[in-house]
This record gives sequence, structure tokens and C-alpha cells, in this order.
Amino acid sequence: MSGSTIGTLFTVTTWGESHGPALGAVISGCPAGLSLCEEDIQKYLDRRKPGQSRYTTKRQESDTVQILSGVFEGKTTGTPISVVVFNQDQRSRDYASIRDVYRPGHADYPYDAKYGFRDYRGGGRSSGRETIGRVAAGAVACKLLHSLGVQLTAYTRAIGPVRIPEKEIKLTEIPDNSLYMPSNLYAGKASDYLESCMSEGDSSGGIIECLVNGIPAGLGDPVFDKLDALLARAVMSIGAVKGVEIGDGFAVANAKGSQNNDSFSIENDRIFKTSNHAGGILGGISDGSQIFIRAAVKPTPSITREQQTVTRDRKNTTIAVRGRHDPVIVPRAVVVVESMAAITIADAMLRNLPARLNTLQEFYSRQI
Amino acid sequence: MSGSTIGTLFTVTTWGESHGPALGAVISGCPAGLSLCEEDIQKYLDRRKPGQSRYTTKRQESDTVQILSGVFEGKTTGTPISVVVFNQDQRSRDYASIRDVYRPGHADYPYDAKYGFRDYRGGGRSSGRETIGRVAAGAVACKLLHSLGVQLTAYTRAIGPVRIPEKEIKLTEIPDNSLYMPSNLYAGKASDYLESCMSEGDSSGGIIECLVNGIPAGLGDPVFDKLDALLARAVMSIGAVKGVEIGDGFAVANAKGSQNNDSFSIENDRIFKTSNHAGGILGGISDGSQIFIRAAVKPTPSITREQQTVTRDRKNTTIAVRGRHDPVIVPRAVVVVESMAAITIADAMLRNLPARLNTLQEFYSRQI
Amino acid sequence: MSGSTIGTLFTVTTWGESHGPALGAVISGCPAGLSLCEEDIQKYLDRRKPGQSRYTTKRQESDTVQILSGVFEGKTTGTPISVVVFNQDQRSRDYASIRDVYRPGHADYPYDAKYGFRDYRGGGRSSGRETIGRVAAGAVACKLLHSLGVQLTAYTRAIGPVRIPEKEIKLTEIPDNSLYMPSNLYAGKASDYLESCMSEGDSSGGIIECLVNGIPAGLGDPVFDKLDALLARAVMSIGAVKGVEIGDGFAVANAKGSQNNDSFSIENDRIFKTSNHAGGILGGISDGSQIFIRAAVKPTPSITREQQTVTRDRKNTTIAVRGRHDPVIVPRAVVVVESMAAITIADAMLRNLPARLNTLQEFYSRQI
Amino acid sequence: MSGSTIGTLFTVTTWGESHGPALGAVISGCPAGLSLCEEDIQKYLDRRKPGQSRYTTKRQESDTVQILSGVFEGKTTGTPISVVVFNQDQRSRDYASIRDVYRPGHADYPYDAKYGFRDYRGGGRSSGRETIGRVAAGAVACKLLHSLGVQLTAYTRAIGPVRIPEKEIKLTEIPDNSLYMPSNLYAGKASDYLESCMSEGDSSGGIIECLVNGIPAGLGDPVFDKLDALLARAVMSIGAVKGVEIGDGFAVANAKGSQNNDSFSIENDRIFKTSNHAGGILGGISDGSQIFIRAAVKPTPSITREQQTVTRDRKNTTIAVRGRHDPVIVPRAVVVVESMAAITIADAMLRNLPARLNTLQEFYSRQI
Repeated sequence: MSGSTIGTLFTVTTWGESHGPALGAVISGCPAGLSLCEEDIQKYLDRRKPGQSRYTTKRQESDTVQILSGVFEGKTTGTPISVVVFNQDQRSRDYASIRDVYRPGHADYPYDAKYGFRDYRGGGRSSGRETIGRVAAGAVACKLLHSLGVQLTAYTRAIGPVRIPEKEIKLTEIPDNSLYMPSNLYAGKASDYLESCMSEGDSSGGIIECLVNGIPAGLGDPVFDKLDALLARAVMSIGAVKGVEIGDGFAVANAKGSQNNDSFSIENDRIFKTSNHAGGILGGISDGSQIFIRAAVKPTPSITREQQTVTRDRKNTTIAVRGRHDPVIVPRAVVVVESMAAITIADAMLRNLPARLNTLQEFYSRQI
Repeated sequence: MSGSTIGTLFTVTTWGESHGPALGAVISGCPAGLSLCEEDIQKYLDRRKPGQSRYTTKRQESDTVQILSGVFEGKTTGTPISVVVFNQDQRSRDYASIRDVYRPGHADYPYDAKYGFRDYRGGGRSSGRETIGRVAAGAVACKLLHSLGVQLTAYTRAIGPVRIPEKEIKLTEIPDNSLYMPSNLYAGKASDYLESCMSEGDSSGGIIECLVNGIPAGLGDPVFDKLDALLARAVMSIGAVKGVEIGDGFAVANAKGSQNNDSFSIENDRIFKTSNHAGGILGGISDGSQIFIRAAVKPTPSITREQQTVTRDRKNTTIAVRGRHDPVIVPRAVVVVESMAAITIADAMLRNLPARLNTLQEFYSRQI
Repeated sequence: MSGSTIGTLFTVTTWGESHGPALGAVISGCPAGLSLCEEDIQKYLDRRKPGQSRYTTKRQESDTVQILSGVFEGKTTGTPISVVVFNQDQRSRDYASIRDVYRPGHADYPYDAKYGFRDYRGGGRSSGRETIGRVAAGAVACKLLHSLGVQLTAYTRAIGPVRIPEKEIKLTEIPDNSLYMPSNLYAGKASDYLESCMSEGDSSGGIIECLVNGIPAGLGDPVFDKLDALLARAVMSIGAVKGVEIGDGFAVANAKGSQNNDSFSIENDRIFKTSNHAGGILGGISDGSQIFIRAAVKPTPSITREQQTVTRDRKNTTIAVRGRHDPVIVPRAVVVVESMAAITIADAMLRNLPARLNTLQEFYSRQI
Repeated sequence: MSGSTIGTLFTVTTWGESHGPALGAVISGCPAGLSLCEEDIQKYLDRRKPGQSRYTTKRQESDTVQILSGVFEGKTTGTPISVVVFNQDQRSRDYASIRDVYRPGHADYPYDAKYGFRDYRGGGRSSGRETIGRVAAGAVACKLLHSLGVQLTAYTRAIGPVRIPEKEIKLTEIPDNSLYMPSNLYAGKASDYLESCMSEGDSSGGIIECLVNGIPAGLGDPVFDKLDALLARAVMSIGAVKGVEIGDGFAVANAKGSQNNDSFSIENDRIFKTSNHAGGILGGISDGSQIFIRAAVKPTPSITREQQTVTRDRKNTTIAVRGRHDPVIVPRAVVVVESMAAITIADAMLRNLPARLNTLQEFYSRQI
């Protein structure tokens, strides 16, 4: 299917441009009977909204969500849920200067190469505002997952060289700082680093991690819809993400089998693993332990420092990108990573139901 | 669709178990008119065949491919291409001992948790032999890409701690050593390391890289079928892969925008980038420069060292995995990574055709 | 994927309930560069809008469409096109009486059986208003097809027993009457018949036909995405349609091969068929002649005559459906059939592009 | 996805040409734990095998099926089931004469128009032998459905003008005659009619009906994956089918609402319908009553009477098709219609599981 839809049973279609009238998503296949209201979605959107700290764009947007379908008397009906956020502060004139110039690190040139032209206002569809639809859908997925005992926690692990050591991670401190770091101490260091980037007209990359707890064993559909494969796709589809790891990720390259294998053990008649290098997924199927995802986020490409580039009509030029840009994307992308993971896992939970014949037999024997 | 099929227009469906009668793939949507014979596929399968070095399983398999459909008078007809490899050396008795025990690092437990039971012989569907279908299909994708001017090169970048420095990479040396490393010098070091692993009854992980040259700008379909997203999914779906990077990958986290952005420049009236931190993909669309993919491969989980684990009936036990196993998966997985990248890019090239109205208008105006 | 999306490259996702805030569609994969404005869509919606004749519901809806994304400076950009129609005249109180009763011929009972409850206001998602999204997307598909030389014409062939004989069909008279019949004479007879139905508190079925001209040979993807298969699905997915025919349809059962086969002949060095029993599709692929589709539409199930039925809590009762209902669905469904055919053919035209290797080779050789 | 795969969770991919080495199917997503052996499939293939009566092709094929994957110790494992039938009696020389001529009523011309050339031997992929994969997969679907209490019955309703009146249908007589008619009396009349067709070098069309009993209410996914829409697509995708009806089909056009609506009633505290004009589907969702499908099958296009046609190089000519052809396709297509209906319903039964949140909650609460 076209590239704007993700999922097999729990599907999400997003649409909208940075400076168009609105952005939104259609969530289809959400089971009937889930309590859902606009506030459930709004609180996720507020986490990605601009203006939460001095490290985010100055654009003023309330990003108020409306549910247009799929909910009746406070519950999902099983029909598609359409959500919309209307744009308010579209200062398109800011972008006239980049109409004919390709910004380094941005998608301007590939969009032109593919489609022949582009909506250049604020990056059009390639803007970070595109994630509004992802987060709105992610909020629905999270609500669904909560009702099934699954909880997601995402946070900023690193900003530039400021990386929180594993032992210093304090998940309770995530809401305390506007960088969504699980350490107020390192959030302070990261702020200092960002100030220095800003003073140089530069920007910073970082790392986001996402933990999924309460996940049952058995999710994922080998061999191409393995859970880790679909998580990698979902997270890599976020603009600015350039790497994805599950569990130990690239560290496995340097490990031996005896180190990397997680032993199984029995406790209270249940199987568990005594370590979790695998990040909760073996052979592409969840193993019942915590799922661990890590994403590398590149520095904001819009910087005020002068850069070498070219014009649409093939002339060399320079550009210093003005406008309202975040010196770091990472904090606002935390909820986007969480959303994409939630959408993927929600779909996997629905798909997993008919894995065994006796589940079907039991379900339909009660029906009749 | 079910988890055994990948792709939108150029699709691949794989099937088969390690110790079943055969394994294979159905490649559907390959354009008509491509020259194709069994030898084209066989040479890719030979690259993943066991018995190429002392670091691969002792299982004896010729892995001879047959084309059962979709080719007529030496050319693809546009109908599905079915390929099959019959198993020969299925010593299933080797596996009776692990019927009721979950091997650490393997998919035994999650398969049981999902499906209620499993084909335990050689890992069944979760065996490395599953990749036969991927490589057969990848060979077709590569043939198609070659005819369009696109070339893929994959190789082993690291085995355990033995990592080839960027400056020492010599692509011409890849075929010289059985580890598929672009450096005979480092291949020697890696062999030494593998010997030490084997002497300890242990195994090693590593890193595979894949380069794609000759790629046009414009491939990829935002926002969920971005080229990097689909590559990440395709590569992460390979058993043992735990991390995927595009371009600089995780290194972007530590970079500044001024370092990470690739400048554009004009030469001979064509646009090119003066660096390639992005790995050939911007905003999820190819930018016309080399695509760069890196995959982290975990150590072979089957090791002869004793490990703590549990039985199907929930009792603690220990296991030392016997059988015929590779002390390192990486060299044989090189062609698998190349195959998955090729399948993904072939599909993207087909999907990209109708991106612009005038391409359609021109095509159909000539038709009538 | 979930049931709210149709298509492979040109995809349509619809959403919305009869008495929710709005209804709409997301059209994804439309090629870039197509001129498109709201008026292009509005004129299709006006053809299905209530209040065009005395045989349609009295509900007052302007059904004004807004384009929220995917169009920039009057042209499609290749990104998803989101369209929305806000509801205005939702007299939900009319439906309180049917909250706990299953209307015969309606989807009330199956929706409850599937989802556990339903949005009972005006039929919710199973209302005829659901077709707003289909028609809005169909308008875009028609605009795209026009630009490729393909024209669709749909009309009412029969209302109840009033069926226009083949020789009396005058396509030019379709716009002359509110029943969209290609014969003002038979439209008059049909009106008389409808008056008699209404006087009895009853309703009428009918037949819709759709012609597609200017279609190239080669569309359709055997074996499951044959053009006739996808047309049948698209048209049968319209509420109230109970039968679909291509070409001679059920008449072929009674024909001999010598009668049913269409002979080929050469004229001006081009191949054409001397008859068209096949309705323009052979082996699931268009043959270049006119495509002919016929759909059977059942009578409006909402009738004021008393009917036997049951309550949600399993008690026998009777019902006489009040509210604002069309005594015949057929005229308003004409544009829906045309829309679904257009959506299907547009997708087939996009998918057909990479059927031959040399098309790809030519396209990409020009790119670089 | 490409046109060779059908289904969302229970998916079927078919491949193979009339005169290639083999034909087959990959069935993916079948739940684990279903008893399955080759004999289960063989008995369905035997129903479509040539040589069962004097009205079928003289080609000698045992059509012996092999299961190559997905079954272990007599049960499905949840992994893809690959089935293959090797061709034996490929007298390709019979077809040399039609290499450069387009047979009327066949797909020769559209295949050339689409792909540039074709495997002309026996029609290649457009041959009736293509249905081997459908029937093998249909056998698996039927086995699955039986285990869930669903039974399908298909039969020949009409051959040419010989149509069994509704009151004369005796399902018990279907196996008694080689035409699969539920009336030995009418089977005799049909034989007489076929003899007269053969004596004229001509062929006959007919009608197939399929009944589905034991179906639960709630199957089907509005709005584009309504159960009737997917059944229409599945059945129309069979070569030679030109029309599909659900329930009363085209007869609804002439009915009034009061006649066509099925009343509900309560018996033994269960809801049932007192009639079944709807054919078991309301609003695209099964209503728990018998599903009724009817398909129109065109006459065999291969006839020995001389016909007007053209050559590949655009010259007028005539043709009298030699070779081994059935004078009527209908009897052998009965099991194909049943198979396609079974595949569609099996998929719908899997997809329906997560329609309600409480099903998911109950399933996963037991898991942990």
C-alpha cells in the first residue's frame, strides 16, 4: 500500500503539511470498547508541542486535537478514528527565501528529484510537524496497550556527548526536566552543551531509548514481520533517526556467545531470563521480558551557520537557515519514538490472537 | 499481509524449515524481460552455503536451486518466479536432545509461547537455513538492479573486536578470504580470534556493511515507507541482527549540525554532495549518492559451553549445544544483508515510477 | 491492512459516521502535478448530495468539501490528500427509537454481533453517508484518469421493473433527469413506479451501469488482482450492492463459445475486437476496448411499512422506520459506482507502469 | 502487494504455468495445531483434475500434491505451508501453432500488451491449471473451517440453458454425477446439451453456486473489506467468471423493500432471520445465516469452430483451436469457487478475533 499507512490490523494513516490547513491521522482497526477522549490524545501531543523549553522552536501552536469519528459515547466503536489538528501560526513568508535553494541535511532536494516540485513552506510533508499524526495515533495505541497491561517509557539518553551512564538512570526524574532525561544532573549538563551549540549557531544530535514493560511472550510474525523488524522500520521512519538498536544493539558485535546469550530460569513456575541482552525479542518474537529500543537522532539540520549548497536551477550558493528551529530535536522526538513503538506493538498484539487453532475454536464456540 | 511476504510491487514470500523437505521463495512482480537462469541464483546461494571455511557448519548441502515458474525462454515473464532448494543432509536425530529444552539465545521458547509447539529439528523455521529463500530472491533482485545500473557490495567489517579501520578497507580483497572481509590482513586477525573462540567452545559476533552504488535520487515513499525505514526492517528481519545504521548511524548522536550536514555542490551541471554522512538518504528518499547500511550481528547462540536453561515442563537444567554450528554467523550473513537490501531497493525502484503525473502521461500516450 | 483502506499505490482510506462531526477520506499515492481544487471534488459530491429530487432524503446537507493537505499552488504534491466534509443537520433524536431494535435489511444486528455495540445514530458507519469519502476520492481518481485520456460514464439502467432496453439508451439524456437515467422516457416511467412505491410505504431496487472509455490494454495484475476481480470488490463494497457483472455477466452462462468469444481484427494497423461480450477484460487484464460494469442495488431497507423484528435484548417486536429516507438508493449511488470504478482503475494504471523491464530501464536512464 | 497473493492474515500466494515444471501455492498465517496431510489436499485436487468425464480435457495429469513445509508431526506449525504439484504431460508442441496468433476469448493479447511477450504454451499463467494452487490452498482453508464448524457446499446450478429449478435441488445427488449437479435428472439433460455443443465444435457456459453453513455472525471488515466485497473479488478472480451474486443478487433490482428485507425473529433465545434474501451478509458483515454465492462462468473459449482473429504482427487470420480442451469449464470450476470462498472466509475468521477489546483483554490476561 502507499507509504502513508502503517500496520496490518491496527493501521495508521497520516497526512498533512507544516504550513497546510491541518495535519491528522486515521487510526483504523482499533478494537471496539476502548474508552477514548480528546484529552487522552492531547496529553501526548502536548509532549511534542513547540514552546516547552528554550530549546524548541518559537512557533506558537496550541496543537489542539479533535476526534472526528470512531468514538461514540466515550468508547471506540471499531470504526476508523479520524483525528485532526488545525495549523494556526503558519508564517509562510519565512520560507520564501528557501523556495529555490536546497537546505543541507533536509529533504528539499530528494523531494524535488522525486516529485518534480515541493511544498517548500516549512519543509511541507518532511517537516517535524508531520509527527503530529504519529503522536495522536500513538496516544490511542498507548491507551489500548495500557488496557492490556503494557506500559511504554521513553526518554532522552544522550544529547551530544552528554550521555547518562546506565547506573545513573532515574526514570522518575524524566518529567522533572524539559529535555525528558532520566537524570536532572545530566539534563543540566546537556543544557550547558546546548547553550554552547546555540551560541555557535549550531545544533546537537542525541539518543532516545524506549522501554516496554508488561509485554507478553509470543508477539511478532516471522520472518519479515518479526517484532524487531517492524519496530526498526517504525522508528527509522521518524525523520532524523539514523540508527536503531534492539537490546544490546551494536555491542553484540564485540560479544561472545557465552556473554550475549540470556539464560533461562524458573521462578514461581514461570520462565524468565536472568539477563536481557536480547532486549526482549528472540527470533523476532517477544520473549516476555522488557523490550528495549534505542534510536540515534541526528542534529537539527537547520542551523544559522553559513553552509555551502546549490539552487534549484543548478548554481552554487550559500545558505544560513533562518526561521524558528529547535537546536536539538531529541526531547520533542521522545514521544514520537514512544508512539511508533506503541503503534507497532498494538498491531502485533492484535495479529497474535489467531496464532493457535484452539484460540479460534474457543472463541467461535462461545459465539454460537 | 502475513509475515512471510515482503514488498509492495516486487514482493518476496519465503517458506521452509531447516529439516523439512525443502526451502524456497516466490518472487512476484518482477518485471518481464529480465534474463534469468538458475546459475544467476546459484552463485548467490553458494556464497551462503555451508562448508566454505572451517568457521561454518559441517552440514553437507549442495543447496542446488531449481526455478519452477516465471521464466520462459530465458527471460522473466512478469508472472511469479518460484524457486526451490531441496534439503539433503537432515540429521534430525541430532536435535532430539533439544526437543524439550529451550536453548539460550534461540527462538525455541518464543515459538512455543506463540504457537504452542514447534518444529524443533535444527530450529525449524528459525534456523539460518531460512535465509535460503531470501538469498534466492535477492539474487533475482540483484540481477534486476544490475540491469538498471545499480550495484551492491556487502562485506564483513568486524568480527568480535577485530574491526577494519575505514582507511584500510580494500573492496577488491573481499573475494580473497572466506570471511568476506575487505582486508586480507584483518581477515587473518579475525581468523586468529575465531580460533580462540572455538577453543573455548564459544562464538563471536560482528558487523556487516553494505554499499549501494548507481542509485538514482527519488527512491522511497514517505512517511512510513521511507527508504531507510524499509531497509531497516528488511535487514533487522534477518535472524541475529540486533542493530541497523544508515550512513553515520549512531555517530550522529555526538555530531553537530555543521558536521553532520552534507553540503551540496554542482559539477558538470549535476548536483552532488561533498560528503555523505546521511548515507545516501535524506527525508527517507534517496539523494543519488551511495547508500550505506551497517548491521550488527550477534554471536552464534549455539555454543558448546554449558549454559543455564529450562525445560518445556518448567524445570531448571543445563545445556551444551552439540550439532554442526558456525562459530560465527557473520561471513555467511553477508550475502543475506546484500539480498535484503537488494529486495528493498528493487521494490522502491518499481514503486517510484508513477511519482509524477507526466511519467504516466508519457507512458500511456505512447501505448495507444 | 485494515478494512478502511483500498488500493496498492493509489490508496483511499475513508472514515466517518452519519451523525458524527464529519466524514472524509485520505487519498495517498496520487502522482504529483495533477491540477486539483475543491470545486473538482464538490461537483462529484453534489451528484450524491441529498435533496436533488423528491426521491431522496429530506436531510439538509450542503456537503461542502475542504482539502486539508496534499495540494500546493493548485497541484497535487505526491503527499496524501486529506478531504473532509463536516456534518450539519444531524437530527440524532430521530434515531433514539431504533437504539434497541434491529432494523430488517440494515447492518444493525451484525455490527452489534461483531463489535458489541454500535453508533446507532443514522446507521453510524453503515449509513449511506459513508460514501462521501468514496466519492471525494473518486473525484480525484476521475481527474487523474481524465488527464490520462480515460473517461467514465455511469447511469441508472433500471429502477424496479422499469429497465431501459439497450437500444433506447441515450447517454446524452443522463443529466436531464434526477434519476440519472439515459432516457427521459424511462425516467418518467420510473418516477411513476417510485410514486406507487412511496404510496405503499415501500421502496425499490435497481441497476447501475458504468462504462469506461479510453482505457489502455494491459491493466490488471493476475491472478488475484485481476482488473475484474478488483472492480468486483470495489463495487460490491458499496452498501446495497448485491451483484456485479463484467461485460455480458450472467448472460454468459447461457451462451456458447462461438457466441461469447469476441473476434479480433486489424484496422489502421491497430488491434480491436469486433464485439465486446468480455466487457473489455480478458484473463483479468484490460484488452483496450470499453470496460463495462453492472451493479445490482437492493431496495432501501428503511420503509414505513410495519415489519417483524427483534430487540437487542432478544424480544420479538415490530418496526416501521421513520426518519428521512430515500425510496430508492439507485440514483444517488450512480456516482458512487463511478467513483469506486475510477479508484480501482487509477490504481491499476499506476501499478501497470513497471510491468516491463525496458520501461524501467528507459525511465532510470533518463534520470541519471 | 503484488497480484499473486490474497488475504490479510490467512494469505495465499500461487505460482506456476500450464507447461512449466510445476505449480503450487504458499499458504501463510494458518493457525498452528491443525491436523493436515497430503491426502487432505489431494481429495480437493482430484475434484478439479482432468479426465473425470468425457467433458474434460484429455490431458493426463495425476496432479499429485507434496507438502514441502509448515507441517510437523501431522500438524500445522504456524509457519508457511508450501505445496507443489509437478507437471507431467506437457505436450508443448500442441501450442506452437498459437504462438503468433491471439485466440479469441483468451488472455493471449492482453498478456502480450502488458508484458511484451508471453509463455504461450497452454496459456501459461492464464491457463486453467493456474487454479491448482487455489484449490490446494482452498483445501487447507476448508480443513481449518471444518475445525471451526463451518461447511461449504458448491455445485453446478446450470449448464447453458439447463438450469435446475430451486425446488429440484438435491444436494445429496452432487457426488452422483461428473457434472457436480445437485440433480441427476438435470445432469442428464446437461450431458445431452454438452453433446450437442461438442458435435458443433462449440462450448457452453454455466452457473456455480456455493453455500456456507455454520458461519458465525460478525465476519467482514467494513468498508472495503466487507465480507461480500472480498468474496466477490476472490470469485471474480477465477478465470472465466464474469458475474458474482450474493443472496438474491440481481433479483434485488426488481424487488421492493418489503419483499427483500429479511425479518428477524427470536427462537430459543437466539436471533435468526425468517428469510435470507441477503445471502447471509448485511452491511458487509455476516449475519449468522447461510451465506449464498453465485458465479457466472463463460463458455470455454477454446473451440474447434473457425474464428476470426489476428496475428502478433498485426495481420488478420482465422483460427480453429486444437488441443485438449473441456467443452465446459463449469464442473471442474466448482471446487475452485468453493476454494476461493473458503480462503476468504478463513481469513475473515482470523481477522475478526480482535474486534472487541474484551477479547484481547481476556486472551492476554490468561497468557501472563
